[in-house]
Amino acid sequence: MNYAAIMAGGSGSRMGVTDVPKQFIALDGLPIIIHTLKVFADCEQIEKTVVMCPNAWVDYTRGLIDAHLAPYSQKLYVAPGGATRNETLEKAVDYICRAFSPDSGSVIVTHDAVRPFLTGRMITENIKYASLYAACGTVFNATDTVVLSADGRFIDSSPDRSTVFNCQTPQSFRLGEYLDSLSKLEKSERDALTDACSLFTLTGKKVYMVQGSAENIKITRPADIQTAMGIIKTRSV
Amino acid sequence: MNYAAIMAGGSGSRMGVTDVPKQFIALDGLPIIIHTLKVFADCEQIEKTVVMCPNAWVDYTRGLIDAHLAPYSQKLYVAPGGATRNETLEKAVDYICRAFSPDSGSVIVTHDAVRPFLTGRMITENIKYASLYAACGTVFNATDTVVLSADGRFIDSSPDRSTVFNCQTPQSFRLGEYLDSLSKLEKSERDALTDACSLFTLTGKKVYMVQGSAENIKITRPADIQTAMGIIKTRSV
Repeated sequence: MNYAAIMAGGSGSRMGVTDVPKQFIALDGLPIIIHTLKVFADCEQIEKTVVMCPNAWVDYTRGLIDAHLAPYSQKLYVAPGGATRNETLEKAVDYICRAFSPDSGSVIVTHDAVRPFLTGRMITENIKYASLYAACGTVFNATDTVVLSADGRFIDSSPDRSTVFNCQTPQSFRLGEYLDSLSKLEKSERDALTDACSLFTLTGKKVYMVQGSAENIKITRPADIQTAMGIIKTRSV
Repeated sequence: MNYAAIMAGGSGSRMGVTDVPKQFIALDGLPIIIHTLKVFADCEQIEKTVVMCPNAWVDYTRGLIDAHLAPYSQKLYVAPGGATRNETLEKAVDYICRAFSPDSGSVIVTHDAVRPFLTGRMITENIKYASLYAACGTVFNATDTVVLSADGRFIDSSPDRSTVFNCQTPQSFRLGEYLDSLSKLEKSERDALTDACSLFTLTGKKVYMVQGSAENIKITRPADIQTAMGIIKTRSV
């Protein structure tokens, strides 16, 4: 059994629309999160999907699902997220454990609500490689040259671009491996985690890289909406 | 004396408009390269600017400058680029040396023609820090988490995001330091250079990082045009 946790806990302060979290902004006539959830609902390998959203928006999110994804509503759950990304992830795993009693080999696929252009192929490959290894993440070859600098003033090194990858989501893991890795960290280390993959790399586990896409963008700024519209136009040609 | 070299040598095969290099595509009514050149022409610290473009487009580029930037035309030169980015850079430096006889302390500011949203502040800071140190590059804090992987299959490490920067342009250097660094490399090493900064990091010189911006994007794909339009709209509010 495989489960999905959609991370929709952000307050969206970078969008300039402070009263509406960014995942609820309309894109081509539908809220961004509905585009995202449709991809998960359509994936037969995902048994249940839990949306983790700000507490004040739980009922609203449930209403959106009932309005736009009614045929899938028994596969889609909504629960309140935490104060940080890692707390939201811990709450998501906790929710899945209580509600569905998964076994330790179950795969949990985590994904950003504001990345609506993931594909079913990315989800199924995440499930495949998280089953094979402890964990996997979706990445895309860096298009920009990056440099590393510890002091923020001078370049320390310029890694060969072919070795640099941008992290996207989904990021996925076997439940048992997640609980095992989490138990090895102190509370302060857990609070510092910014994504699921770093939990596994920190505890010395192998994380496989699934191929993402240039289109699998995270919509966080107004200009990203323009980019997203461009992607939709290109797709519909 | 400070000089600018605008790198417009690309064929634009990623734009889906194979017959027109991307720098000539219109953005808000003007070719992208005209937006870019206007910023350099307006900068009083830049004495002369040389546009390095494909041989077949030299006359066309000259015509664009005469049509749109006539008041600045005596500051703007056009010359044919090379087959690779580094060859184009070498030709640009060669052109500047022959045409203007700069001294070894002169700063050369190099910039991508398809980054029209640089600012005068970025140019003047490039001049300041290339004068102070051997070289500098314009960078922006990475917004995406990046991971490094030598084999392309498993994550080797996840550098702390605060130490990761995306390279933009301008990239600038003192002429004497450039010629000195270049003389230390074999032909094969020179051919492998993808940007001016890597020449200096490779030869052990300090490269200062000037702060770029999220808007200073490189327009290489159709979706980037949408992003660029969004940036222009946001600016004109």
